Order: sequence, then C-alpha cells, then structure tokens
Amino acid sequence: MLFERIESKGLAHYSYLIGDGREAIVIDPRRDCDVYVRRAALEGMRIVAVLETHRNEDYVVGSVELATQSGAEVFHADAHLSYGYGQPVREGQSWRVGGLRVEAIPSPGHTPGSMSYLLHDPQGHPWAVCTGDALFAGEVGRVDFMGPEHLGEMAALLYETLFGRLLPLGDEVIVCPAHGSGSVCGTAIADRPWTTIGLERRYNRRLQHSEREAFVADVGRALPIAPYFARMEALNVEGAPVLGVLPTPPPCTPAAFEALAAEGATILDARDELSFAAAHVPGALAIPEVNLPRFAGWFVPPDRPVLLVTDTDDTSQAVRYLVRLGFDQFAGALAGGMLSWHASGRASARLKVLPAAEFCEQVRRGAALWVLDIRTEGEIGQVPPVPGSHLIPLHELPDRIGEVPTDRPVAVVCGSGLRATTVGSMLLRAGCRDVAAVLGGIAACATILGRRP
Amino acid sequence: MLFERIESKGLAHYSYLIGDGREAIVIDPRRDCDVYVRRAALEGMRIVAVLETHRNEDYVVGSVELATQSGAEVFHADAHLSYGYGQPVREGQSWRVGGLRVEAIPSPGHTPGSMSYLLHDPQGHPWAVCTGDALFAGEVGRVDFMGPEHLGEMAALLYETLFGRLLPLGDEVIVCPAHGSGSVCGTAIADRPWTTIGLERRYNRRLQHSEREAFVADVGRALPIAPYFARMEALNVEGAPVLGVLPTPPPCTPAAFEALAAEGATILDARDELSFAAAHVPGALAIPEVNLPRFAGWFVPPDRPVLLVTDTDDTSQAVRYLVRLGFDQFAGALAGGMLSWHASGRASARLKVLPAAEFCEQVRRGAALWVLDIRTEGEIGQVPPVPGSHLIPLHELPDRIGEVPTDRPVAVVCGSGLRATTVGSMLLRAGCRDVAAVLGGIAACATILGRRP
Amino acid sequence: MLFERIESKGLAHYSYLIGDGREAIVIDPRRDCDVYVRRAALEGMRIVAVLETHRNEDYVVGSVELATQSGAEVFHADAHLSYGYGQPVREGQSWRVGGLRVEAIPSPGHTPGSMSYLLHDPQGHPWAVCTGDALFAGEVGRVDFMGPEHLGEMAALLYETLFGRLLPLGDEVIVCPAHGSGSVCGTAIADRPWTTIGLERRYNRRLQHSEREAFVADVGRALPIAPYFARMEALNVEGAPVLGVLPTPPPCTPAAFEALAAEGATILDARDELSFAAAHVPGALAIPEVNLPRFAGWFVPPDRPVLLVTDTDDTSQAVRYLVRLGFDQFAGALAGGMLSWHASGRASARLKVLPAAEFCEQVRRGAALWVLDIRTEGEIGQVPPVPGSHLIPLHELPDRIGEVPTDRPVAVVCGSGLRATTVGSMLLRAGCRDVAAVLGGIAACATILGRRP
Amino acid sequence: MLFERIESKGLAHYSYLIGDGREAIVIDPRRDCDVYVRRAALEGMRIVAVLETHRNEDYVVGSVELATQSGAEVFHADAHLSYGYGQPVREGQSWRVGGLRVEAIPSPGHTPGSMSYLLHDPQGHPWAVCTGDALFAGEVGRVDFMGPEHLGEMAALLYETLFGRLLPLGDEVIVCPAHGSGSVCGTAIADRPWTTIGLERRYNRRLQHSEREAFVADVGRALPIAPYFARMEALNVEGAPVLGVLPTPPPCTPAAFEALAAEGATILDARDELSFAAAHVPGALAIPEVNLPRFAGWFVPPDRPVLLVTDTDDTSQAVRYLVRLGFDQFAGALAGGMLSWHASGRASARLKVLPAAEFCEQVRRGAALWVLDIRTEGEIGQVPPVPGSHLIPLHELPDRIGEVPTDRPVAVVCGSGLRATTVGSMLLRAGCRDVAAVLGGIAACATILGRRP
Repeated sequence: MLFERIESKGLAHYSYLIGDGREAIVIDPRRDCDVYVRRAALEGMRIVAVLETHRNEDYVVGSVELATQSGAEVFHADAHLSYGYGQPVREGQSWRVGGLRVEAIPSPGHTPGSMSYLLHDPQGHPWAVCTGDALFAGEVGRVDFMGPEHLGEMAALLYETLFGRLLPLGDEVIVCPAHGSGSVCGTAIADRPWTTIGLERRYNRRLQHSEREAFVADVGRALPIAPYFARMEALNVEGAPVLGVLPTPPPCTPAAFEALAAEGATILDARDELSFAAAHVPGALAIPEVNLPRFAGWFVPPDRPVLLVTDTDDTSQAVRYLVRLGFDQFAGALAGGMLSWHASGRASARLKVLPAAEFCEQVRRGAALWVLDIRTEGEIGQVPPVPGSHLIPLHELPDRIGEVPTDRPVAVVCGSGLRATTVGSMLLRAGCRDVAAVLGGIAACATILGRRP
Repeated sequence: MLFERIESKGLAHYSYLIGDGREAIVIDPRRDCDVYVRRAALEGMRIVAVLETHRNEDYVVGSVELATQSGAEVFHADAHLSYGYGQPVREGQSWRVGGLRVEAIPSPGHTPGSMSYLLHDPQGHPWAVCTGDALFAGEVGRVDFMGPEHLGEMAALLYETLFGRLLPLGDEVIVCPAHGSGSVCGTAIADRPWTTIGLERRYNRRLQHSEREAFVADVGRALPIAPYFARMEALNVEGAPVLGVLPTPPPCTPAAFEALAAEGATILDARDELSFAAAHVPGALAIPEVNLPRFAGWFVPPDRPVLLVTDTDDTSQAVRYLVRLGFDQFAGALAGGMLSWHASGRASARLKVLPAAEFCEQVRRGAALWVLDIRTEGEIGQVPPVPGSHLIPLHELPDRIGEVPTDRPVAVVCGSGLRATTVGSMLLRAGCRDVAAVLGGIAACATILGRRP
Repeated sequence: MLFERIESKGLAHYSYLIGDGREAIVIDPRRDCDVYVRRAALEGMRIVAVLETHRNEDYVVGSVELATQSGAEVFHADAHLSYGYGQPVREGQSWRVGGLRVEAIPSPGHTPGSMSYLLHDPQGHPWAVCTGDALFAGEVGRVDFMGPEHLGEMAALLYETLFGRLLPLGDEVIVCPAHGSGSVCGTAIADRPWTTIGLERRYNRRLQHSEREAFVADVGRALPIAPYFARMEALNVEGAPVLGVLPTPPPCTPAAFEALAAEGATILDARDELSFAAAHVPGALAIPEVNLPRFAGWFVPPDRPVLLVTDTDDTSQAVRYLVRLGFDQFAGALAGGMLSWHASGRASARLKVLPAAEFCEQVRRGAALWVLDIRTEGEIGQVPPVPGSHLIPLHELPDRIGEVPTDRPVAVVCGSGLRATTVGSMLLRAGCRDVAAVLGGIAACATILGRRP
Repeated sequence: MLFERIESKGLAHYSYLIGDGREAIVIDPRRDCDVYVRRAALEGMRIVAVLETHRNEDYVVGSVELATQSGAEVFHADAHLSYGYGQPVREGQSWRVGGLRVEAIPSPGHTPGSMSYLLHDPQGHPWAVCTGDALFAGEVGRVDFMGPEHLGEMAALLYETLFGRLLPLGDEVIVCPAHGSGSVCGTAIADRPWTTIGLERRYNRRLQHSEREAFVADVGRALPIAPYFARMEALNVEGAPVLGVLPTPPPCTPAAFEALAAEGATILDARDELSFAAAHVPGALAIPEVNLPRFAGWFVPPDRPVLLVTDTDDTSQAVRYLVRLGFDQFAGALAGGMLSWHASGRASARLKVLPAAEFCEQVRRGAALWVLDIRTEGEIGQVPPVPGSHLIPLHELPDRIGEVPTDRPVAVVCGSGLRATTVGSMLLRAGCRDVAAVLGGIAACATILGRRP
C-alpha cells in the first residue's frame, strides 16, 4: 500500500496520494502536481481519481492540472456548484483502489457539501479518514464562509458531522486532515503531525462541547476572510488554466526590470526580512519567501504580472508558492539580485529595523514611537501588546493604512519580524517616512520585558 | 514538530527522527545514517540522543555510527548486556526534546529488556508510542530468540507488556513499530502504513486472545532463526566499525574480477532474476538487489570480501543494503557488467527459467520434473504447493541441499520467481545440471491451475 | 562567461548553452529542453536566441519547444526552406551576447545552407567555432542527404567550407561540433571530447586530402539513410508539437497492457539484452534503452502509440530518448515489469543467447548454424566476420528479412550483443523458430578465435 | 573517454578527472573529493592515480583524502619536498590510462618542481596539456612564492617552461590550467572557459615578450602572499587529516552559540552583505558565502573552532568552502539564523550601507567621510579611486587597521560591496563607531560620477 501525505509548506496544506496494486488516487492535490505524477509512476501506479473534500478557498486546487497530466477523473464535493470540469461525488459513492475501498462520507459544515473519505483496508476495516477542513488536529473547520447570516446553521451542520459521523468512526481511526499547524483554515491547529479520532475526542477543545448549543456558540464565529478567497473559489469552480511546465520568470537586467515596473508590474521582494531592510528596489512589496503562501494572496494584485526579487537566481520555490495561489503571470526576475541593482548605480530604499532589545529600551525610555501591532486578535489574546500600541490586524491594514501617521517614527510589531517587514514595505509605499520593523517580535519583547520588570 | 519515519526497504525497518525546538532524537537508526544527520541539520536541530528499543538481531543498528557523526548519546534497551558503547536506559527514564517528553516504557517479551518510547506532546498528552518489536500492525513480536526453553516465559512477558502496558495507553494512541510488512521480525505484519492501539486491539488477531494461556499458546512458537542474527547481535553489543563515508567497491575489469574471485571473494550477483538467468559469471550467488536486505545475511559468507555484479555501474544501493547487514568489505564490482564480461570472450553460465504457464503445462503433462518448493511453512499454508512438490524451506536449503538430485531436471518454485533464482544459483553451484526457476511463482501457478481445472 | 556543452547520450548530440552578462543563446537544442531553461535561469541569464546550424535530420530539434518556454527567437540555417516558425539567419548576421559576439559563417556541404557560428571573446578574438555537422573530431559531415545525384556537388561545397572557411580560422580555434563519437552523422567520429582546428588539420584523415578531387572522391559517398530522417526533417521544418511537461506513460496491468497491444500499440522492450532474452512479452520489439536514440527511429512505427517495458517503473529516461526522435504518444508502460506479467500467469517468450565462447566453439565444431552478421560495411571492414557469415546490415534487415531461414538455427552477430537482440526480436516476430544472439559480439569472437588459432 | 573538468567555485580551481577503459586519474583534486569517487564509479572506472602539478599553496589538495577513499596512488610534483604520503613523479614518467598516455613534463617556474601533464590520445597524438599554475588563459603563473630574492630566477625558469616546453607543443593543443578567472593564483586570468596553446601564444599578453629579459621584467614581480599559504603548503606536504564524511556543524540555540563564542570560537557570518548589514551577532566576522574561498584563509583564525551564521540551516556549501582551506573544526551553527537570535531577545549589531548613488552624492556635497578603498593595486589601476580616498589593500588591513579613525564616519569602497562588508565587520570589531559599506562599489561610483560630470 502506498500512503503518502504531501505537505505544501506555508499553506500548511496536506494532500494525500493513496495507492494499492496498480491504482492510486489523490485527495486535494495542489496545482504544481508533478510530485504526484512522478511518485505514482515510480510505484507503477496509475492515478485514476482525484477526490476533493470541498471547493477550496485558500489555494488553487490542482485537480484539472493533474487530470490533464495523468488522465485521472475528478470528483467534486460541494456538488451544488456548477463546475467547469469533473463530476460530482454521488451520495454514498465509493471507489476501489487495488484492495482498498474509499468511501465518501458527507461532512457539511465548513462548506455545505464537504466530503470526508474513509479508507477501508483489504480486510474491510476502516482505519483512516481524510477529513478535509472538517476536523484538524486540535481544531475544527471554519464555518464562516457562507456569510455571517449562516454562521449558526453551518456550525450546527458541523456539529452533526463531527458528533454524528466522524467521532462515531471510533477512537482508533487515524485522522488525515487537509491542513496542519499554521494554516489560515483554522486558528489553532495543533503542531502534532498525526492524529486520531480518539486524540481529538479527548483533547480537541472544540469537541469538549458535546452539547450542540455550546459547540455552535464556540465555533460559530466569523474570522477574517481574505479577499483572495473569492478568486480561489472561482478558479476552483471554473478550473484554473492548465500550466504544464511551471513558468520561469525571465531574468532581467536592472534597466529591463525598471521598465517592466514602470509598465505596472508588481515588484515583489521575496528575500528575507533583513536583506529587504538593508536595501530594496524602491516601491517593492516585501513578502519573505517563507510567507508567500500565507500573504501573497492578500497583498499581491491578481491582475498584474509579477516582478520577483529573490535571494538567488533560483526563483523556482517562489514560483511554486505563487502558482498555488493563482499567480502565473511573471514579468521577470531581477537577475543577480540587489548586487546587480546596486552595481548599475541605481538608488535603493531601506527599512529600519529595531531588534526587540533596542525597541524595548526605547519604549522604556518613553521614546516618541507610534507602535503598530499588526497581530490577529487571537495572537493579541495570547501575548498582550506593548502598552500604548495601536492595534490594526494585518488583514485590515490596506483599508486602515490612513490611520498610521506618515510624519512620526512608527515601529511595527508582529510575532517574529517577518510580517512587520511586509507592513513596513506597505507603509513606505504609503509615504511613511520613518518606519521600523521590530526584530524578534512580540515574543522577544515579552522575554525582555519579563526580564526587566 | 518534526516527526519522520525513515523506512529501510527490504528490511521493512522503520526508524524515527523526532524533533522539536532545536533538538531531535532518533529511535533505532540504521547504519547508513546520513539521512538523519542531513535531515536534522536542515531543520536546525541537533540530534541529542539515540534510543534503541532492543538489542537488534536482524540488522546492524546505526547507533555508534550516528553518535560518531552527530555527537548524540546512545541509550540501550536490554540493559543487562555488556555494551561496548553508550549507556543503558534507566528505569523510568524520560527525555525532553524541545517541548516534547519521551518516556521509556519497559516492554519485555521480544527480548528480555525491550523498551517502548511514549511521546507526550507539549500539553502533556501521550499521542504516539514507538513499540520496537513488541507490537506491529497486525502482528506481535517474536518471542523465540532466547531459545526454545524460554518460549513460554517470553510469551508471557510479552502478554504482560501488551495487555498490561501498551493496550492501556488508549485506543487513540498512534503505534510506531520498528518494522512494517515484509520484515523477518514478524510473519504476518499488515501492509497498513500507520496503526493505532485501537486498531490493533480490535483487529490484530494475536490480541484477540485476551487470556494469557491462549496468547502464549498462539505466540509462543519457534520460527526459523537466521544464522546471521547472532552476528548482528554481537555487532550491536560491541558496536560495529565506524564507516564514515560508505564504501565504493572498486570497479574491476573481467580479468581483475576473475582474479579476486579466485582469491576467495564471494561473487554476489544482485541483478534481476531474468538477467541472471540469461547469463552470469559461473559460480555467482544470485540475490536480486531488492532481496538483498532479506537474504544477504543468510547466504553471503560474512568472512570474505564481496564482489558485486549489478545492472549498472551504480552500486550504491546494493552497498547500502549490505552495509546494513554488516558487510563492509568489498573486493570490487564488475565494471560494465556482463556486457564487458562477454566482450572479453569469457564464458558465462545460465539458469533455466520456466514461466509458470509452461511449468504448469509440463506438470499437467507429467513431465519428469523434480519440483522444489522453497517457501516457508506459513506461505505453504496460504497457497498449497503443486502436487508432488518437495518442500525444503529456503532457510534450510544450505543444510539440506544434498536432498536435491543433481542429475534430474529440477524446477524451483517460490512466491514470485526471485527466491527461486537464488536457490537456482545455489543448486548450480552444488552441481545440479538442469535447474529452472519458475517465473511468476506459486501465485501464477494457482491462477493458471485454477483456470484449467 | 557561461559555456556549457550539453550532451544527449546515444544520439551523441552536442548542443551548446553560451552566455555572458545577462543573456544566453542555445545552439541546436534538443527537444526535452528543460536543461537549458533551468541552467540559464540559475545563472540569471535570459535565453534570447536559438541558433540552428542546419535543418537537422537525426532528431527533433528543440527550437520551437525552447522558444515557447523561454521566449527566445529562433534563427534557422538552410534558409531556403519554408519553416513554420522562426526566421532565417541572414548573410553575415551576428549576435551580441553580453560581451561576446557570435558570427554566422556559411558552411554548406552537409546541407545546402548549413551555418557555423564563430565566437569572439570580449576583446574581439575568435576562439571557438560551433561547426554543426560540417566538421567533427576526426571526421567531416555527410554529404549524401541531397541524393546520390548531388554527392559530388555537396562534397565540393564541403571542401570549400572546410578548406576555404574553417581551417583558415587558425589552428588555435576550438571546434565545437554538433556530434561526438557514436553519432549516425559521421562514421568515424573520434572519441576525443574536445578538439581544435589545428588538431583536425593535422590528424583528421579526411582533411589530409588538400586537393579538391581527392577530398570529393573520399567524402562523396552514400551511406545508409535512415527512413526516419525524412520525418525528422519534416518536423524540424514545420515545428514539432509543443510538449510542455514530458509525457508519463500510464502504468498498466498485464491485462490492460495486453489489450492496448491488441489495439495496435507497439510493444517496445527497452530492458537490457539479457532480461529480454530470458523472458519477454510475445511480439515485443527489443531495443535496449541505451540504444533507443540510435535505433528507435529506424524500427519503431511512427504512427502508433508505444507500450513500454522497462527494467524499473521509472520510464523517464526512455521517454526522453523517444521524445527526441518524435515519439510522443505513449499508450502505457507495463507496471511492475515482467515480474507482474509472470505473476499474472501469462506466457512469455524467450530469445536464445550464445556467449561468444560457446558460439565460437559451435562454429569450430561445424554446427549447423546460419550465422547472420548485421554490422555495417564499415564495421565489417574493421573486424572481418566469422567465416561463412551471411551479411545483412541492420538497416537493410526489414527489407531483407525474408532471406533469413525460419526453420534453421540462426545466430546473430553484432558488435557487442545489443543490436543482435534487436534483430533477434525482429526475427522472432517474423516467425524464426530458433534464434540466438551472440553475447560479446564480434570483438569477443575475434579475441577467442585469435586465442585458438 | 571521460574528460571532466571539475570547478571549485570561488577558488576558481580546476581539477580534472580523466578516464579511459576502466581506469581514471585525477589531477589536483580538491579536499571534498566525493565528486571524483562518485563520478568515476558511475562510469565503472577505478581511480588509479592522483597527479599533482605542484605543491599547492592556495587550498588543501585532496590527494590523501582521495587516495584513502579510492585506493589511488599519489604522485607529487616538487619532488624535492619531504612529503608525508605518496611518491614523487620521476623524470620522464608516464602513465597509461586505458588507451591514453599521460606524460609528465617538467614545468618549473611557479614552483621549482612544477609538472605539466600532456595527454596523448590512443593514436599517440598529443591533444591536451594540464598546465597547473604554469599557464592560464590570458595569464602565466606567479613566480614570487620562493621569496623576493628568487624572483628573477623563477621567472627565468618559467620563461624556459613556457617558450621551451609548452608553446612548442603546438597551437592546436588544448590547455587545461589549474585555475580560471578569479583565482588568487593569477592577477588577470581571462574569463574564457577553454583555451589552447595557439590562443595563448597569440593573445596572452605575457607571452608577447619573446625575449627572456622582457618576460622576466614583466612577470618577475612580487604580489601579496596570503599568510594562510604557508599553512596550506605545510598541510599539503604532511598530508591533511582524512575527513571521511564532511563535518556537520551542530545546530545551536542562541544561548549555546553565545557560550561557544565566549569560549573563543570565531563567529563567521556567511550571509549576504545586506543581511549582515541589517543585523548580526555582535563581534561577527562577515565573509559572504560566495567569498569564503577567497578570504576565509586570510581572515579566519586557523587555531580556533568556527561558529557559523548562514542564511538557511543548510551549512553544507559553507562547510565545503571552509574544508577546502583547512578549516575542519566547527563549534556549531546558529540554528534558525538571526530570526531565532532576535526571537531570544538578544541584541544585534548593524553595519551601515550606502548605495553608491547616496555615497556619491555625499562625496559631491563634501560630507565629512573618511573614504577607505580596499581594492588591490591592480584594481586601483583599472578604475581610479574616488578622490580623497585612503588606500589600504584588503590584505594589508589587519596590520594597518590602526590607520582608520574610530571616531569619524568611515565609508568602505571595494568592487561591489562584498569585501567592504568584510572590512566593515573588521572595523566594527576594532571599535570604529560609524562605518558604512558602499553598495555597488567602485563600478557603480564610476558609472554615477561619469553620469554627472
């Protein structure tokens, strides 16, 4: 039996390649689907079906790409939607994969037509269940995507799914969710790589509410909904364009890069936070590569080509991250990076950085800093902000950027310093003249302030 | 959290690299330990400890090699033995690995001092247990290594371990055994990649005997004990020689190869069964590469250097397989393979092959074939032999080879044709003049004979 | 400066990736062009142009594929042809690539409009010349592709090219031809990895004829022209279909494989000669993988999909080899190889093999063998055939297969045993009942017969 | 024939793996010698000999390491030295490698006992010569290593080698030197990847002096001799310690890192110049990874363990670079990089950066900058310094660091900004309070100042 969980870092997205005999299926593939094609071929297995647990909203599902490359049939959950490809999962449908049987289990709540897929071994014993976004390690799915008016209804559906269908599968059944720790699809997914029905039943705090009302009250809350989710949803219903080979952004000289930027391409700087701080192409948006999966969808305009600045001339990882979010038009990449930019004599911009130690010292001394804490409500709850901080969650910043003063020193605080760099780049573009990202973020501040009462 | 199961194919051996924060441990490493060193370094984790679940008998444990390369401390189960390195696990010992806690749980039965290691997450919840050779998916550990006089005693210890310590951990706990399907350490390990206490409690047929007596009666049986197990055990107590870089067998011309063979090196042909059959260096022992982990220990003399014949000049996989079994002296490899052997004008030998279809036809017509079925007792039980077969299990063949006639056509049957090739090579060396390996093995025969009643 | 020679094994084809600053060009790319795209991107170089030395006949040039993936412009030699893409090289055209200058030098002879490309370094010194099929190490280009009536004319053109244009470039100039040793584009290309004008002027035996007449007499000869050359030429003028991702043949069960073969797909067995000999799917055409680049074009029907049998389930190398020759329709691959074929109970066929030592012994004893030597005229000239051999060059075999008796033992001799296997598979398909491939080939025979006078 | 040039980037060192039949030799291997072992094994070739062109001074030769791993014999040039391993090349010695012949040609001048190795093809034609440090593309070897009193004598020896032995080999012979463009072993090696005797005879400016006196006057000059050369020379005579597996620096938490630094380990920051500038561990020495091969030998103390700070947790490339220079004691690496450093609340230091555009503007306005130009005399000759610059070549800085004011703003100029970062880190450690590295270096300044006359 072949059972591989393929993790897409940053998205914290899990897809599953499951095979037996000469057949395999993929559950919730990502768009750069070479990994499934290659892996299955090396096992001598043909990918016969792609099963989706729900119409995804946080990334472009690779179903149409994988079907094109492998000949697999695509089966959609959320069968009420009018898909441009594939076919809906039928009530009670199951698939044979070699000696395995995969059974669709309706699991509404996260979306109206979510499906789980229960794996039965050749002896007929159910042993694992792919729960999509219904149930994670330590968390349950979001129920706020149908709008605030449906929160209660969706939460109640999820309650039925969890207590009526999934928990009864038995404590011993292994749970294979669509996301791990760090996903935007769950605020508190545990950093435990594998879980079981029993572990969730016992330790998942959402599942401690065995009363429907308490569960609905706890779970039926609205979280920030990224504006790009609508794009992902639309692409996943229509079917995203088939890429074939992943694109290679054309290497550009500084002059060519500048010209393309002048024509309206977005300068996206994917280098680490320190490199960006020391010098960057003026006007660049900073999203360190590791954060592209989480924030490119939020902040990169979808309707313009992208110009990349990366640490090395190998842009392939950044391209994968962006393609997964539907960005597939690349105007170019700055060949030779900032070294060649500077060698051409061009001016660069910088962003101040404040190691948390210095920042805390300035705060202690009462420096005239406008402190901007861009963490989420949940994070704020866990570690309180530095006194006097202005709280604007990152996702609200584009709309509330006018609240930030442009003529005073601003210090941006996040968890580690990475998101602060992204915010810093946005504030510089908005005309703020004195912006600093706090390195080490709130964790470091808490440590330091704890040290020095 | 880093949680990687590293599988060593063929041995069907599972080791585990588990890390959190900046620390990691490895449970039961293999001897070619580059995989752990590299993986941990890429995560920025230091390997601080190597934990053994028992003194292994079926491969050379990589503890001393990994300790040398990483600086980790080695902790031994079976603390009654006089190890040449490392230190014994103490009663009730536990280790902190970042936010995780790893707790040693005495699990005697397979060996007198076996240990399991229970993983607690940062919230203190036990969620996974590394059970070594005590509990597998669908099977329990062997209890026959202490000799037939201790069978009952060891089986009773295992009963206590399973029913007294492991099952009570809870159905929800994930079980991480030291072996998967195909290992010599369990006759019927299930081909299910992950399991849980609950899945085992419900479906493992050994665990259906909740009465001690019934369990002991079922489990307390002697299986074939490979003679090389004693070597592995000795090496694992003393500490195998540190290799550093894996050896590269020197490429040899046919003349050099012949000379080294004449000096006593073992000619080990690791090509596939068909290539060997068509032509091989006279006197070669055939063990197709995929079978090296299972049979090299049985049939390759430990006290002589090895001369390899492989499909390509890339011998690295064969070397890894052999090093794991303690073979680290390589006299050379036949450069250019059999193509260069034949180009030199040297004679080669062949082994007949009989596709099962032809074999069955000959059997049906009553051809004068001496049919040798070399499958294990367990396999024989599952699929009966062709009528008239002589049954000599592979592991008994070296001692019983005299039973095979040298002057009659012999057809060797196994499961697929691979082991039959190994036996064929041994019979040719023993002077049998007309030997054929049945391609497709008993499975094909059963299909065919079923078709033609 | 970036200067990479990319070798396509088997075709013995050399392409060149040449870059400076932020630009690069490729000369004569192969169809699976990922290597250029990736390599240039890692150097931060944009591929701006693809230069062809001539309309190629022995493989599908990758110009259109590479232009699609990189945005490069394509420049064609043989400008008299009506290409479906790209533009012709103009008289005296040159390109700037960073500080380099690349100058087109008309080099007719191999084709009417062949071009060489001379590289000048930033100081303006010519230092290397890409000679396409005009000049190789130790050999000159073929002049027989325009038909026998143009032999003299083309040879005279080549004389002018070599003595009038290339040799005068100076002894010190490095020669970068389009093929190395083993190509079908030159009978006697030397196995010297790099060469210079001076080395060729001194040692290339063709260039020892400094008189036009002697040169024309030596060079103006017709060689076998592979029938697939016409297809390659047509594809290279029209532009081959753009592939994007290389195809992955769908893994097939034996039953599916059999069904596809019954529908007319070609069974192409790319395993080594010994595996094929021991057992193969009845009706298969044997071309060991290493020989696919040289012989697939000759013997694989272009108008049917291909069914692959390979040593492992990794078919990617075989696919690359076939794609380079225009085969891009794959019906499937036998998943699990012959092991799964046999396990299904299906019958297989075999081909006899005769190690040269046995073959020579049979010849010596006067056995009733019909010896078929399928080497080329040139090879026959170098090592004489075994007395009594029937000579049918491999490329003539499809037309002359009727000359081979079907009811007598036939032994096929080639250079090493590989081509003999291909011929053996063709003879089996043609109904020959007793065919053997001589292992070690004529080289081994010569050694043996030399030993025993 | 196998003929591979293996380039060690940064050192701009070329070694050669040359094989034919089943044998291969390596000329001037590097210390991390896995590349030769692996490559030769895949070709089925045994490395039989390691040939050195001279006792190397700029890196640790891999002869003893490669001999240990492959069983090859080591042959030393500079036979007058008392080597701790291997044997001297004898006068007129030659080696057979398959059909090739490799002939030692005494080539004194760079060292007293340098050797070149001339390759003859199977027909006996000389076609390539490995010239070590005697002759490069566009440059000749240094003659100043025996001390200033021997300059004329060594230059005269080199004259005899070049005009008496190498040039007479013929214009057509390919030249395979030990270094390419960028090496410290020649001030002006051309960026031309391959060269020939004829190209050098015509274009190498040193070889335009066909009179001995003029040649000696041009070539017989002293260049900076790195202090680490003496260590390399000593290691290459004694034989460097055998490493086996390349070391993996243990990942360290910030606290552990700090403790090791306090014990005296050198903090070596190999990140890019911008990351270092924005934030670094106080006291760190900055040598961006790409510059390690050129400058680690100069500035990293050889007698202390190294603590690495790198961009990612993959330290393997930095380790290779350092091992080649004899650094093989690693105390650790900062796990998680500066992100984890800051997260721990630790303070970091920064280095100012000045994009050339800003720097030039400040210079134009007459800002009170102490401009330090650390380029070599040769570079200064090519592009003049900014007026008013203080010239201290990088290699003299450790001795002359007292000349730099600690209480004034200092701007460091080099070619691109990389070396300026190294100098910046040294000045910070020396107590300078206001130091900036000029980004884009002198090239950018020249462009800018040229723009604004």
